[in-house]
Amino acid sequence: MVSSHRAYTRSDYLFFLSYRTRWTDNDQYSHVNNSVYYHLFDSVVNTFLIQQCGLTSDSAQIGLVVSSHCQFFSPLSFPQVLDLGLRVMKLGSSSVTYEVAVFEEGKDVPAAVGGYTHVFVERGSRKSTPMSEPLREGLSSLLSTNESLESTSKL
Amino acid sequence: MVSSHRAYTRSDYLFFLSYRTRWTDNDQYSHVNNSVYYHLFDSVVNTFLIQQCGLTSDSAQIGLVVSSHCQFFSPLSFPQVLDLGLRVMKLGSSSVTYEVAVFEEGKDVPAAVGGYTHVFVERGSRKSTPMSEPLREGLSSLLSTNESLESTSKL
Amino acid sequence: MVSSHRAYTRSDYLFFLSYRTRWTDNDQYSHVNNSVYYHLFDSVVNTFLIQQCGLTSDSAQIGLVVSSHCQFFSPLSFPQVLDLGLRVMKLGSSSVTYEVAVFEEGKDVPAAVGGYTHVFVERGSRKSTPMSEPLREGLSSLLSTNESLESTSKL
Amino acid sequence: MVSSHRAYTRSDYLFFLSYRTRWTDNDQYSHVNNSVYYHLFDSVVNTFLIQQCGLTSDSAQIGLVVSSHCQFFSPLSFPQVLDLGLRVMKLGSSSVTYEVAVFEEGKDVPAAVGGYTHVFVERGSRKSTPMSEPLREGLSSLLSTNESLESTSKL
Repeated sequence: MVSSHRAYTRSDYLFFLSYRTRWTDNDQYSHVNNSVYYHLFDSVVNTFLIQQCGLTSDSAQIGLVVSSHCQFFSPLSFPQVLDLGLRVMKLGSSSVTYEVAVFEEGKDVPAAVGGYTHVFVERGSRKSTPMSEPLREGLSSLLSTNESLESTSKL
Repeated sequence: MVSSHRAYTRSDYLFFLSYRTRWTDNDQYSHVNNSVYYHLFDSVVNTFLIQQCGLTSDSAQIGLVVSSHCQFFSPLSFPQVLDLGLRVMKLGSSSVTYEVAVFEEGKDVPAAVGGYTHVFVERGSRKSTPMSEPLREGLSSLLSTNESLESTSKL
Repeated sequence: MVSSHRAYTRSDYLFFLSYRTRWTDNDQYSHVNNSVYYHLFDSVVNTFLIQQCGLTSDSAQIGLVVSSHCQFFSPLSFPQVLDLGLRVMKLGSSSVTYEVAVFEEGKDVPAAVGGYTHVFVERGSRKSTPMSEPLREGLSSLLSTNESLESTSKL
Repeated sequence: MVSSHRAYTRSDYLFFLSYRTRWTDNDQYSHVNNSVYYHLFDSVVNTFLIQQCGLTSDSAQIGLVVSSHCQFFSPLSFPQVLDLGLRVMKLGSSSVTYEVAVFEEGKDVPAAVGGYTHVFVERGSRKSTPMSEPLREGLSSLLSTNESLESTSKL
């Protein structure tokens, strides 16, 4: 699987944010720890949901992560600046599967590619519910052009 | 896949550690954030490597994570105490695939199950290298009894 | 100031919890990073508030940190288990100043001593408000026997 | 003490970096947790040491934090972008005291001001040692113009 990562480039992704790494992102092997990538996934996804899909701190619906994964191709290290690229691989009625690629600033091939699946639920009951129209519309704009609503992540 | 989780119980795992959750493990949805599970995976795995396999802070070999994944079945929340169960699903000459289950204290069915693959490399060159005998011997003791050296993770 | 730390011992503290360190607590200098101590302060304080003072996830009052500090006397490192000792140095009508000492398991002299001041506010308006009777009663039980309600932290 | 913070403005600081907040920076009170500010302090200080003072991942000298502190004036929240301002308040032969101010993007008055003291030590022995000339020269450039080498932090 690892060998397939050269298939990923910046042009596959539709929403980007840059994140400055932090001193404590490096673990004692002096590289960004694997868990930090998931912090970044959550950050780029939720920024998109807030800025483009109307998510607020008291929205009726919230997204809960039901599964996540990541493949690590090459190491990253503080104080590098990282570019996070986001796309949507699968969009259901109440769930969405994101793919996120992590690029060292200025590189076209990602250092890591992963993602997760959000199920949208009612904030109080935490029961799954069809996503609101603003959520669906915003997320649709990130659907990979090579993918359909029925497609699955290639990871 | 989610529906299959009831197949997992404490008796599947061979090494356990308890971790007290921390205030900041909860994100603004008042549950333990998905990224925190990966911090715990790294903690139980590396404690095992240090305590049972002779890993030290200047060992010639270190384990690098090449891929990781997790499925989340039910929420956890500070200040719960969590029991982490570890087993080895696949043991190669230079790599090992761990599975970790996260249990709320006193529960037999896990709240989450995930894991990752370590490739062992020389500390300096970061080139992969067959794992040392103490590593191999220690990790072998965690091999699931239902799995062989050739087996693959059921996740 | 650093030389004064030998004055601190376990017997100064009134509420204790043990925390297992995590792999990512170590930064690239292979010791527990300074910021992690503040994660632990928040954890022991909020566990006390939940278990002994009736704080819940929807309490009318919440505690906001207005200042914090720590002195570091000796290094700690994963996978050590740490004992956190808590006492109250100053108790006002709407604020409380905690002191927390961090002990390596089995040691009587702390590796670090710090703390912070909580101001209690209404959850919604975030305006300061006299603390409820359960909060005040619980926190009073942690007042250092050498300190009065008017005392100030010796740090 | 809190009332004195209006004395701080951007013009007091000499080195700036912007940090995007992360989803997990918010704790369950939906604001950036107090411990996160210390992660940011470490990040801006070490970036300066690497970019301006020649610190590398195998430098003969490393800086260890011996004490730290922070005052919190107003809340911050994901997904805000934060500007960190750094200055040096006291420069000794082997130690340096930094002050860091945390600004919401576009604001002139900080949301928090804190800092810490680094003692430089030999990497191996961890014994304190006079700082190298590149360290001293770089750090001197951040000395507050209102402060002398003997001055102490106003916090």
